[in-house]
Amino acid sequence: MALFQTEEYLERIRKTKSRMTDAGIDVLIVCDPANMNYLTGYDGWSFYVPQAAVVSLDEEQPFWIGRGMDANGARHTTFLSGDNIIGYPDDYVQSTVKHPMNFVAGEIKHRGWHKKSIGLEMDAYYFSARGFVELQKDLPEANFKDGNLLVSWVRVIKSGREIEYMKQAGKISEKVMQTALDKLSPGVRECDVVAAVYQTQMSGTSEFGGDYPAIVPMMPTGEKTSAPHLTWTDEPYKSEQMVNLELAACRHRYHAPLARTAYLGKNPPQKLSRLADHTVEGLNLALEAIKPGMRCEDVERVWRKHIAKAGLEKESRIGYSMGLNYPPDWGEHTASLRPGDKTVLAPNMTFHMILGMWMDNYGFECSESFRVTEGGCETFADFPRKLFQIT
Amino acid sequence: MALFQTEEYLERIRKTKSRMTDAGIDVLIVCDPANMNYLTGYDGWSFYVPQAAVVSLDEEQPFWIGRGMDANGARHTTFLSGDNIIGYPDDYVQSTVKHPMNFVAGEIKHRGWHKKSIGLEMDAYYFSARGFVELQKDLPEANFKDGNLLVSWVRVIKSGREIEYMKQAGKISEKVMQTALDKLSPGVRECDVVAAVYQTQMSGTSEFGGDYPAIVPMMPTGEKTSAPHLTWTDEPYKSEQMVNLELAACRHRYHAPLARTAYLGKNPPQKLSRLADHTVEGLNLALEAIKPGMRCEDVERVWRKHIAKAGLEKESRIGYSMGLNYPPDWGEHTASLRPGDKTVLAPNMTFHMILGMWMDNYGFECSESFRVTEGGCETFADFPRKLFQIT
Repeated sequence: MALFQTEEYLERIRKTKSRMTDAGIDVLIVCDPANMNYLTGYDGWSFYVPQAAVVSLDEEQPFWIGRGMDANGARHTTFLSGDNIIGYPDDYVQSTVKHPMNFVAGEIKHRGWHKKSIGLEMDAYYFSARGFVELQKDLPEANFKDGNLLVSWVRVIKSGREIEYMKQAGKISEKVMQTALDKLSPGVRECDVVAAVYQTQMSGTSEFGGDYPAIVPMMPTGEKTSAPHLTWTDEPYKSEQMVNLELAACRHRYHAPLARTAYLGKNPPQKLSRLADHTVEGLNLALEAIKPGMRCEDVERVWRKHIAKAGLEKESRIGYSMGLNYPPDWGEHTASLRPGDKTVLAPNMTFHMILGMWMDNYGFECSESFRVTEGGCETFADFPRKLFQIT
Repeated sequence: MALFQTEEYLERIRKTKSRMTDAGIDVLIVCDPANMNYLTGYDGWSFYVPQAAVVSLDEEQPFWIGRGMDANGARHTTFLSGDNIIGYPDDYVQSTVKHPMNFVAGEIKHRGWHKKSIGLEMDAYYFSARGFVELQKDLPEANFKDGNLLVSWVRVIKSGREIEYMKQAGKISEKVMQTALDKLSPGVRECDVVAAVYQTQMSGTSEFGGDYPAIVPMMPTGEKTSAPHLTWTDEPYKSEQMVNLELAACRHRYHAPLARTAYLGKNPPQKLSRLADHTVEGLNLALEAIKPGMRCEDVERVWRKHIAKAGLEKESRIGYSMGLNYPPDWGEHTASLRPGDKTVLAPNMTFHMILGMWMDNYGFECSESFRVTEGGCETFADFPRKLFQIT
């Protein structure tokens, strides 16, 4: 079953071509797996080998170029006609003498595009420096341009169907967070709470199952709360500690992250409770302020003004555009809720707003995933915003 | 707690420097997260932003350079002295005007290494084309060399402690496979079997917990068995179908993959049973043949000769070196069990040997993770090799 109508893919491609035209790009080599999925429907855990969706202004459909054994996966998951699915032989894989981008260059030459202006996603995760060097070597007459994030910016405004999947992910994320809170207890090993979280992420609801999120569950406690990207151990959680819960759920590669903080004990320190109150108030105010036409930086200002009253400040951005993605990140690397970001909010932009406030030896975080609506915003999950106590 | 003694890290660094000297490299910029972990101990889900371990022939310890907020994670997980942990400011992250590799170049200049021979991991997953361009721009006098897989080749022979973690992963992988077989049943949704698999991967055993494997569980059935990298859906498994189970467990980032095939019914087609018998025999023979001093290609030949007798052949490699890794791949991209690979087997090399035999509309796969011993080889998991029937 196609996850989207062919018409929706064609519309995405039209928007991409319009941006390509503006950027003076004739042919765009798309290696970011989320962008490949967005333009073709392709969904497989094959991005550990080089692959691409190639968009030409002259062609209605992109070409999918990937490893031969993944061509069947492309036939299953994309709307592309069979002629547009091209597999490279297996001896290109992890070879010391040739590279899959040599094959891609061959396809470009074969179509007479080798003197054109060719856009590359220069900072995408799965387009390597070597891939770039090989393309330059094989296509000396091409005019290479940076097409980084070009498709990602098309992705910023979601369709009705995309929003539907994100709402489903939001429903799962409520269950995921409740599972974590139910399972968390002093003496329980970190890995066992994480195991329960994963179980719920994948089993989803009785109506729809879950997909693997682009980031693993983060549930640091104690000292490790000051090191945000360390993963779990098999140590047991301890009493009288805080636990940050940075979790998410995913549906058909569309995410709904959700973060909360729990305290393992009856009497959280007063300074922690106060911090939680200020942070939740600031989150609420920022969410209430959102409306189409507002700029990203203005949303951040609402938050900043509020917490300044309590003598607090936060250096890093408070949110970012997200939706469709693959490991290692669910963020889209486009619009951010931060000073200087002039992106104008429009209906069906989707963000993860995450307020993490870190003091010397305590902290609190709370987040919501939401879409901008015609008159404001709507969160994907419905979950209390507060400091949770596990007693 | 340090996962390895400092002496072990220093030994890895000495071996790396020896290879650097052979390759004429003075300074090596290591961006592959597994290689960073191997040389410093660093373990965090932060590879979605550029980061590096920089090894210089002149310095005993590498420098860890990463995002400022991850410096605490580096202090927690590495053996490095504080001076060797360098965080870059947050405005380098996803900026349109500067790039973290500009910061890395600044550190190189600061140390007077800008005219040296600098090795880059040109085909590593998290070193982007843009990163390469920025280094070239900022270090015009450097002599850049390809240091791809240089550290990965040091990783090929594991230490006693590394083997210990892989044995623990093997123990978990037995539980993971048993969980999948217990849960698999016609009518059960794919996502629910995957959920149980994840649960077991992370909860591990009562003695030790599990870590996230570098590849998600693959459990295709029906038509999708011909598309090896498609992930799960929420469709129920059906009777009279085969299911491939490509699973794994991970301990402290060390993997033990394990693959089996199950048939959902009492009477598997005779051709499938026959294929299973031939494949398992070939796997057994290849494992029995292994001994130090043998070449990788010779192991493959044992397998190939055996299945040729049954009129079968297999195009792709039958195994590869693996161990420590991060998404998107647990393979090390170094030694492969395939024709032409002259790598000589030595004790404590570790491989995943995977025999996947795909006919028109049926297939069978079976795998083992193992280490080469003084006299042969030893698998990390102990699990029956056969076609499983779910009745």
